[in-house]
Amino acid sequence: MKCVIIGGIAAGLSAASQIKRQSPEAEVIVLEKSGDVSYAACGMPYNLFFRDRPVEKLYAIPLEAIRGERGVDYRLHQEVTRIDADGKKVEVTDLQTGRTYSEGYDFLVYATGNKAIRLDTPGFDSSDVFYFRTLEDTRRAKEFLYGTPPAKVLLVGAGYTNLEVADVLTNLKLKPVIVEKAPVILPAFCEEVRSKVMEKAREKGIELLTGVDIEEKAGRRVKTSAGTFEADMVVVAAGARPNTALFAAAGGELGVAGAVKVDRYLRTNLEGVFSGGDCAEHYVRQLGLNSYFPLGPAANKQGRVIGHNICNPDRMTEFWGIDQTAVFKFFDYTVATTGLNERQLQTLSKDVVKVVVDGPTRGEFPGGGTIRIVLLCEKGSGLLLGCQMVGEDVVAKRLDILATAIYKNMTVFEIAELDLSYSPPYAPVWDPVLVAANVALKKV
Amino acid sequence: MKCVIIGGIAAGLSAASQIKRQSPEAEVIVLEKSGDVSYAACGMPYNLFFRDRPVEKLYAIPLEAIRGERGVDYRLHQEVTRIDADGKKVEVTDLQTGRTYSEGYDFLVYATGNKAIRLDTPGFDSSDVFYFRTLEDTRRAKEFLYGTPPAKVLLVGAGYTNLEVADVLTNLKLKPVIVEKAPVILPAFCEEVRSKVMEKAREKGIELLTGVDIEEKAGRRVKTSAGTFEADMVVVAAGARPNTALFAAAGGELGVAGAVKVDRYLRTNLEGVFSGGDCAEHYVRQLGLNSYFPLGPAANKQGRVIGHNICNPDRMTEFWGIDQTAVFKFFDYTVATTGLNERQLQTLSKDVVKVVVDGPTRGEFPGGGTIRIVLLCEKGSGLLLGCQMVGEDVVAKRLDILATAIYKNMTVFEIAELDLSYSPPYAPVWDPVLVAANVALKKV
Repeated sequence: MKCVIIGGIAAGLSAASQIKRQSPEAEVIVLEKSGDVSYAACGMPYNLFFRDRPVEKLYAIPLEAIRGERGVDYRLHQEVTRIDADGKKVEVTDLQTGRTYSEGYDFLVYATGNKAIRLDTPGFDSSDVFYFRTLEDTRRAKEFLYGTPPAKVLLVGAGYTNLEVADVLTNLKLKPVIVEKAPVILPAFCEEVRSKVMEKAREKGIELLTGVDIEEKAGRRVKTSAGTFEADMVVVAAGARPNTALFAAAGGELGVAGAVKVDRYLRTNLEGVFSGGDCAEHYVRQLGLNSYFPLGPAANKQGRVIGHNICNPDRMTEFWGIDQTAVFKFFDYTVATTGLNERQLQTLSKDVVKVVVDGPTRGEFPGGGTIRIVLLCEKGSGLLLGCQMVGEDVVAKRLDILATAIYKNMTVFEIAELDLSYSPPYAPVWDPVLVAANVALKKV
Repeated sequence: MKCVIIGGIAAGLSAASQIKRQSPEAEVIVLEKSGDVSYAACGMPYNLFFRDRPVEKLYAIPLEAIRGERGVDYRLHQEVTRIDADGKKVEVTDLQTGRTYSEGYDFLVYATGNKAIRLDTPGFDSSDVFYFRTLEDTRRAKEFLYGTPPAKVLLVGAGYTNLEVADVLTNLKLKPVIVEKAPVILPAFCEEVRSKVMEKAREKGIELLTGVDIEEKAGRRVKTSAGTFEADMVVVAAGARPNTALFAAAGGELGVAGAVKVDRYLRTNLEGVFSGGDCAEHYVRQLGLNSYFPLGPAANKQGRVIGHNICNPDRMTEFWGIDQTAVFKFFDYTVATTGLNERQLQTLSKDVVKVVVDGPTRGEFPGGGTIRIVLLCEKGSGLLLGCQMVGEDVVAKRLDILATAIYKNMTVFEIAELDLSYSPPYAPVWDPVLVAANVALKKV
């Protein structure tokens, strides 16, 4: 069996490793276009914090181990230029030598990830404009930032990435300006969470403007609908689009958000071609539908499922789906969400009870903070549909309690009965999760 | 309706508050023997860390708020000397004035907590021997510790309390010796967790001896089966027994471990008398049986259930039970357990698969640590029966993910599918919980 994998970052390497684990005799070739082996892309903004921590620390595993221990023929600088779905082969260019060759396959894994949405606004092709999709982007941004520290930085887009970057820049004594096209930041979050993030930005002296259209960039001056800003560095993080051109050109069918359309087994419409990760759709369990929610854990899990299904065509397993869990750091705040958000619930016309609870994260022990928990529950049944948190101290793994509850379709009545860990350094005797559930059960 | 509550720390105050919440017209009298209002007893060892943090910081709520906002007639220094179950009244002595009086009741809540097992070994009645059950004990110990700092401290018993105290003493530049009667420490934990705790004790220069019998104490010298130790201070934390004398004397029936026998509604055998907290039994869901597992959260939850049941005799709710979740801090380690432990599983003759996984708590972001996760699963089904963790960084709230899983009878196959939060400051892309589940599912 010969497997070719296009893209070797998250889903691609996971699939490759899983295939070799289950079918050691299989030939597995990974064709990675960049010069970097599998890395933790979500760690890129955080790496900027640490001048002396090379971006290569983000590598998931050294190239030698992928080739040696895992037995994967992992090739860097290899660009696939065409998929011949009928002939079951791909055409490849070695970007270092210019040599072209083709590789036949029994199974193909399409795992090309996504790419930053680039601004085609005049002036945004200059070298002081940065994106954040690849390790190479991060390398460039980091060199710039620590090499010729900019006096003024403009961040275009107020998603996770630029909020994390704002945190880094503030740490470097810069006060970035963030401009966001949409009327609000973080549309997947409730106003009760967004307002805390806005408040923190203000507290840190970061100007954060919404509803701003970028008009043009001329040298250091960026003209927008909210006035002109000076910037020695511009970071654009205005969303990402699945990398699907190669797949579509081969007759591949696209689905939600232009991502590769996959079934629950992660098969595409092309014979023998699977897809996963940031280029593909993601099944959202609570919706019973595919959606597009590109994050690392799903990519890795999908990769494993693909590997399993390639090795076990007679007993394939479904990708069980995601619950839309996500978290990011914004200064001393952790901001996290799981399950359906308010917008999705409005679309579904669900009768929802929202509960917002603020409380301490610890008992009588220093070092804690406060946490805000928002529960979105079904009226009547009390079924937990979604949860968001923002606060200091331990937030992400507290959210995971409720991610687990959502996975198991728990009601707030059940959540209130959980036997959660208590000791003053870790929680108050009524953990805020229990407090929120107790408030909610009176309202549903 | 008139309710009398004996003991006002955890279960007692929770019951009182719940009664007033649901039946504001009820007369609720709390008779607390000590001079301290409801406090977080689990916080007592930790309070020792902080010289200038008064032990009264452990109060859950000020006396004025209990009396004013909650409308509870909370009386300190009131000792109940007899329960007249037939006459439905209690006899009380005001310990400050010596006055005696009686109070009739429609409902009585027996919430007297537990008491330290005292050593009757010769010499252990001296003033340099300390226990840790009440806030008054803590006050005394703290005064001693910071007043005339002892040169040498002997800790008798290696349970949570003394391990926490050892941490405090080390912080004060003392190197305590711990002696434990049993052949191993922490019998509810697996050897794989115990060994990490022992290792940490060694690393911190704490001598920890097991299988030691105490023979006598003569001045500074404590004679034991493992030799003689000098000590200016002895802390005895060798377990606790439910305070049941008063209840038993009134014809009350005792159950497991000599605790007050209660049904699922927390009723005792005495008409109109409920009980909860550290003096009563605790229903263990996984066993379907009452057990004795005195901890703060259960006491508070039982108190609420009692309050509800007193106010709603026609629609009483069951105390849903505990999953035996517990956690303590030992230096930079957090040690935590939930669900059934190995001993319990042996008694049940379950066919168990044990998985031990060590991993990092974070992704590529500084400040993390390592965590060891032990999963105990049912052979075949993969049902999670128990989980223990030891490690640095975020452990307690990670354990709660698995406490939730146990509550919902999840298998490791399901746990492996959880969509847990990921971002480098909070978790690796495969959270150690997922790693452990993935290892386990191959073995069950």
